[in-house]
Amino acid sequence: MPQEGSEFAPPHVRLFNYWRSSSSYRVRLALAHKGLGYEYVAVNLLEGEQHQSAHRARNPSGMVPVLEVEEGGRTHLLTQSVAILEYLEERYPQRPLLPPEPLARAAVRALVEACNSGLQPLHNTSVLAHVKTALHADQRAWAAHFVGVGLTALEASARATAGRHLFGDQVTLADCFLVPQLYAARRFATFDAQAFPTLARVEAAALALPAFAQAHPDAQPDAVKS
Amino acid sequence: MPQEGSEFAPPHVRLFNYWRSSSSYRVRLALAHKGLGYEYVAVNLLEGEQHQSAHRARNPSGMVPVLEVEEGGRTHLLTQSVAILEYLEERYPQRPLLPPEPLARAAVRALVEACNSGLQPLHNTSVLAHVKTALHADQRAWAAHFVGVGLTALEASARATAGRHLFGDQVTLADCFLVPQLYAARRFATFDAQAFPTLARVEAAALALPAFAQAHPDAQPDAVKS
Repeated sequence: MPQEGSEFAPPHVRLFNYWRSSSSYRVRLALAHKGLGYEYVAVNLLEGEQHQSAHRARNPSGMVPVLEVEEGGRTHLLTQSVAILEYLEERYPQRPLLPPEPLARAAVRALVEACNSGLQPLHNTSVLAHVKTALHADQRAWAAHFVGVGLTALEASARATAGRHLFGDQVTLADCFLVPQLYAARRFATFDAQAFPTLARVEAAALALPAFAQAHPDAQPDAVKS
Repeated sequence: MPQEGSEFAPPHVRLFNYWRSSSSYRVRLALAHKGLGYEYVAVNLLEGEQHQSAHRARNPSGMVPVLEVEEGGRTHLLTQSVAILEYLEERYPQRPLLPPEPLARAAVRALVEACNSGLQPLHNTSVLAHVKTALHADQRAWAAHFVGVGLTALEASARATAGRHLFGDQVTLADCFLVPQLYAARRFATFDAQAFPTLARVEAAALALPAFAQAHPDAQPDAVKS
């Protein structure tokens, strides 16, 4: 079932994901930005559905998101948000999320990785669980430390790269990673907009766009209202 | 000064890096595979050179590697190994490290990210330091846990993707991430080749290639013989 607001329905795209997962949110942003319709399939991480056999068959690591696409008459399962977003960019070049020049693309990808490998892995569910159960340490203090370090580096980079958006004046993959990262930071109550003025400004510009509203966790069918 | 064995010297490429850094090793592998000459500049992580002003001016986050390239009469500083390797692939397409089809590229990039965001961030220097100094916990036990989990998932993926190399029969970006990852795993004494037979087999095939010998940590000018 294509989501409301989609302009183009590819032959078959299903997204296995979870409303609050920041990696899932990245993929929803790219799909919405490109106007691609897709079927939303919720995998309830709180109930452990990611570890059940149905999901392990899609992704042996048990992680979300997984994107199921059809090409050449067969279905294919794609994992890892960076790989999925690069695929969407190559396969559906409309409304590009990467600039054309190699140096500019490298700058966008460096911002992407500052979130993807520099921040998110240190506060994902399995790492926080290990901090608590194996080390008997404070999960929030752990997350706050690494979110603080990571966002400080990202703010320094953003001062050099940002225009209206995180890289220049167009939405890029960098915004598709920053916005979910700041959403995650707030869950740990560690995002102080005054300490990160460039990040806060470009986040606000992105959140004002219809695609970002459509992909927001609170707008998803499995969202739990608090 | 182009390294011995380089076939092609671009106008100006300098790599700021450290012999044992697995992210540095990835970039050396891509440069060597493509036969690109470059100037090697050592940043001694043990002596804290990454935090000194000279290196902070190159990369505010203080991380290695940093690749300095010349384009349009100006020098540019590239950070984040994934962004650097994608740039090298786009700018120097000889001996490609990504296959041509979008689905195959997505599969290679998923393997890349299994190392880049799934494994390396959890055992990098700053995280292990925090585990020790802030949590007073055992660094090696921490690293061994996450390396074990990550390599188990990667071995499962590799069984589906590997030929002679990690993705099919050609060297790809996936090999440029796997080989440094297994080098890092051995530093923590947690790599059991019998537990990960596919990874061990494709690692051996890669290490037999001249480019992989040239890029190995022990072959670098700042290597410390033990």
